Amino acid sequence: MKKLINSPETVLADALTGIEAADPSVRVDHVNRVIYRAAPKVDGKVALVSGGGSGHEPLHGGFVGYGMLDAACAGEVFTSPTPDQMQAATKEVDRGAGVLHIVKNYTGDVMNFEMAAELAAAESGVEVATVVTADDVAVQDSLYTAGRRGVGVTVLLEKIVGAAAEEGRDLAAVKAIADKVAANGRSMGMALTSCTVPAAGKPTFDLPEDQMEIGIGIHGEPGRHREPLASAKDIAAQLVEPILADADFTGDPAIVMLNGMGGSPLIELYLMYGEVAALLEKAGVSVARTLVGNYITSLDMAGCSVTVLKADDEILSLWDAPVETAGLRWGR
Amino acid sequence: MKKLINSPETVLADALTGIEAADPSVRVDHVNRVIYRAAPKVDGKVALVSGGGSGHEPLHGGFVGYGMLDAACAGEVFTSPTPDQMQAATKEVDRGAGVLHIVKNYTGDVMNFEMAAELAAAESGVEVATVVTADDVAVQDSLYTAGRRGVGVTVLLEKIVGAAAEEGRDLAAVKAIADKVAANGRSMGMALTSCTVPAAGKPTFDLPEDQMEIGIGIHGEPGRHREPLASAKDIAAQLVEPILADADFTGDPAIVMLNGMGGSPLIELYLMYGEVAALLEKAGVSVARTLVGNYITSLDMAGCSVTVLKADDEILSLWDAPVETAGLRWGR
Repeated sequence: MKKLINSPETVLADALTGIEAADPSVRVDHVNRVIYRAAPKVDGKVALVSGGGSGHEPLHGGFVGYGMLDAACAGEVFTSPTPDQMQAATKEVDRGAGVLHIVKNYTGDVMNFEMAAELAAAESGVEVATVVTADDVAVQDSLYTAGRRGVGVTVLLEKIVGAAAEEGRDLAAVKAIADKVAANGRSMGMALTSCTVPAAGKPTFDLPEDQMEIGIGIHGEPGRHREPLASAKDIAAQLVEPILADADFTGDPAIVMLNGMGGSPLIELYLMYGEVAALLEKAGVSVARTLVGNYITSLDMAGCSVTVLKADDEILSLWDAPVETAGLRWGR
Repeated sequence: MKKLINSPETVLADALTGIEAADPSVRVDHVNRVIYRAAPKVDGKVALVSGGGSGHEPLHGGFVGYGMLDAACAGEVFTSPTPDQMQAATKEVDRGAGVLHIVKNYTGDVMNFEMAAELAAAESGVEVATVVTADDVAVQDSLYTAGRRGVGVTVLLEKIVGAAAEEGRDLAAVKAIADKVAANGRSMGMALTSCTVPAAGKPTFDLPEDQMEIGIGIHGEPGRHREPLASAKDIAAQLVEPILADADFTGDPAIVMLNGMGGSPLIELYLMYGEVAALLEKAGVSVARTLVGNYITSLDMAGCSVTVLKADDEILSLWDAPVETAGLRWGR
């Protein structure tokens, strides 16, 4: 295992130390492992809390800041944070307007956020609403989920809903826009290589030098099938076609993300985006905004995913609102 | 070779197609392989042109935009662009105020930019000034250079000097701030793995599973030495110590970049930054601004580099000026 770490046991603690040192706009609660805005609003704003297993950076900690999240709970690598962490974050960020939990659809995350919401309501009187993302069209159920996995649309949702909360909308309105984004986005990913979880010390799965896996999950969980390495053009088709088959993306404009899994360099991600854009144009999808880069990763896995979100005027206008976080620059 | 490409021969052309599709704020001259701002200023601004071999993305194409470059010339992977490309870019962006060439110190780049400057002056009467970056303390001469290699400080220079040009400073003043940045920055890098050049189809060098290379270049050219894999803390010391031994970074504040080589995930880069920050604090270096992420990469190489720039008030103020490019968000 070749990694820039001190020891498998201290990866998360050491990374949180680095995030805090690198970004003066956040502060870290090292006991509860929560990343907060260093200068939160005083009152009235609906607060957004997300979180999940670590190893997907910049998601979620890199998205804490003006226009996105108020707090992110960091679990161990690929492991859900605990209800205690989530409860502490929820209580800390509440400004009397309620808190939205943004949860990727994995069994541990869903269960723990649910428990945290109940505890925060019962013990601190915090009103909590929840949105669950489940945008991965690759599989219907999987290793860690009942139903579809939550992946790339989570990034877009945190940006868009963050802008709505920043505008001062109330919890019901913030929850409504979150549900709209969750309902209108679809994703599909693929891997050229496995990731290596530090605590395991070896690749999660074996993928021969001449094979790739289509429909991979962000924890290295199985996708749809394996097949021989193919061209970027062919890979793009295998990601875009299942997305377009699952929902109608004509009519409204779309926001499209070409996301890297962590180990693929930017030159390849841009190249892939060119292929995806050509396919979408051919299919009559009008791309209004794009994002190309590493946004929801899977440690050092080489590969990429495509996310397409149907975006009406409200979503586009929220997408264009200012954002100041380490992990997402102003969307254009 | 596992890459998201169509064929080794078309990597650059296909990536340029993707960049143009992804970023409406740039346009691409596909014949000359130059990335331009889509909406350049009409007149009076000193223009900044850079470029070099591809494979280091987002450098340089991702840095074209308001507050940074006016044009970037893209060579084939790890190969200098030609004087023709540079001459075309120089002529195209000149607004009567002259053009600054930003050149990393590699023999081909230096020679070709020199020829382009002469041609642009002789044939089009464009006044050209040049800054050469040579900040890599790892080696004095190397495979592709006489003198030190130009690496990470190029990123910081393009941001800072871009802001100076945007303010309307004249060519001599822009060149002066460029020279100041080039003189006051130092870098050092390391690799856990080799990169693989698409046209070669196999790793540039062999690096056993239990070894790393300290002082690596951004083209996989040899560094100082190889040694057994070490902890992040130890690696950080091996990068920071030679930098601090080469220049005095106490007194003024510093801008520090922890840069990923392309194949290392963000969680490891943040972890490394934590170690670097602790060492700098111990050495009495006051870090005023930071940048953590993939900014000057080496295809899919796993590893990182550290760049430290001594920054007076003028440099810090230019660093803080707005920037709108795909590759660099507003530095904080």
